[in-house]
Amino acid sequence: MPHRSWKYLSSREIADFRVLRIRQDRYLFQPTQKEADFVVCDSTDWVMVIPVTIDRQVVLVRQYRHGVREVLLEIPGGLLEPGELPEQGAVRELREETGYECQSIRVLSRLLPNPSTNNATLYIAVAEGCRTMGVQTLDALEQIEVVLRPLAEIPAMIASGELCHAQVIAAFTLAGYACKSLLLE
Amino acid sequence: MPHRSWKYLSSREIADFRVLRIRQDRYLFQPTQKEADFVVCDSTDWVMVIPVTIDRQVVLVRQYRHGVREVLLEIPGGLLEPGELPEQGAVRELREETGYECQSIRVLSRLLPNPSTNNATLYIAVAEGCRTMGVQTLDALEQIEVVLRPLAEIPAMIASGELCHAQVIAAFTLAGYACKSLLLE
Repeated sequence: MPHRSWKYLSSREIADFRVLRIRQDRYLFQPTQKEADFVVCDSTDWVMVIPVTIDRQVVLVRQYRHGVREVLLEIPGGLLEPGELPEQGAVRELREETGYECQSIRVLSRLLPNPSTNNATLYIAVAEGCRTMGVQTLDALEQIEVVLRPLAEIPAMIASGELCHAQVIAAFTLAGYACKSLLLE
Repeated sequence: MPHRSWKYLSSREIADFRVLRIRQDRYLFQPTQKEADFVVCDSTDWVMVIPVTIDRQVVLVRQYRHGVREVLLEIPGGLLEPGELPEQGAVRELREETGYECQSIRVLSRLLPNPSTNNATLYIAVAEGCRTMGVQTLDALEQIEVVLRPLAEIPAMIASGELCHAQVIAAFTLAGYACKSLLLE
């Protein structure tokens, strides 16, 4: 739906990477009739999954993140493949990154990870009844450590900064409101 | 600290916008001795602030977001200016975007908004005792509506998707763990 103040005019591609295309969008700001450019990171949508085992452990992943040049503890996730539904992507990423399979998968409402400069939608999925099949399927440039932690410890891990990825924290919060069994104390 | 698998080699700037610089970082992945490039959005750090009035209303902002081309309900925030501390940026953004001042400001632990491709740190601040001074100070291209909502309604707004900005949701969660008075039910 057009916005009454911001009239979209045109786009100009700046760079095209595999996971990210950078462009500038030109707008007319109608209150002052001024034109302005805004940089947009045009990204494929991605999914993150909260995998919970029958004994209420969360299956986390620890990996190097090239944006911040740090090793982070997160939940599994990744970019959706062309034509893939969020629940399919969640099951695939869970299997590839951790070697776990789930008995049920449920996609919650959408989130926006960085809406001022990124157009991506982030889907949050909850995978319950998870159990290990024992084998990760990693890309040639992936190196992922699987870490099991009790669901009950998640709030303390957020409070201490051990979990500091904003999307991961939002995922746990959303899951708690959507699934009573996942509500954090 | 160097990572045992990922040896950073070099960077190449792709594009420089005011708020965002795009570069490619080259790494040597030591387990296979393969080199690979990773795109990084090099962004100034930013701060988001949860402003609460004496009668437990949250001061929210509604504005057009050019990344997703939608009007979103969020908390105030913005990029830190050079040399500015997060608490200073929080007070400034609160004043500029909403016309509110606060009696106390407290910065919580850092979050990472999008660590796989963005190097930014997101600081979360809690501003208490907020009251309106009545006048926003907006940039020529800003148009921001101030919206007051009871703190007690935030969980329902997250569950319904009315608040869908992952960083905003993470901010409320972190604030609830850090400040008992802000814990969401």
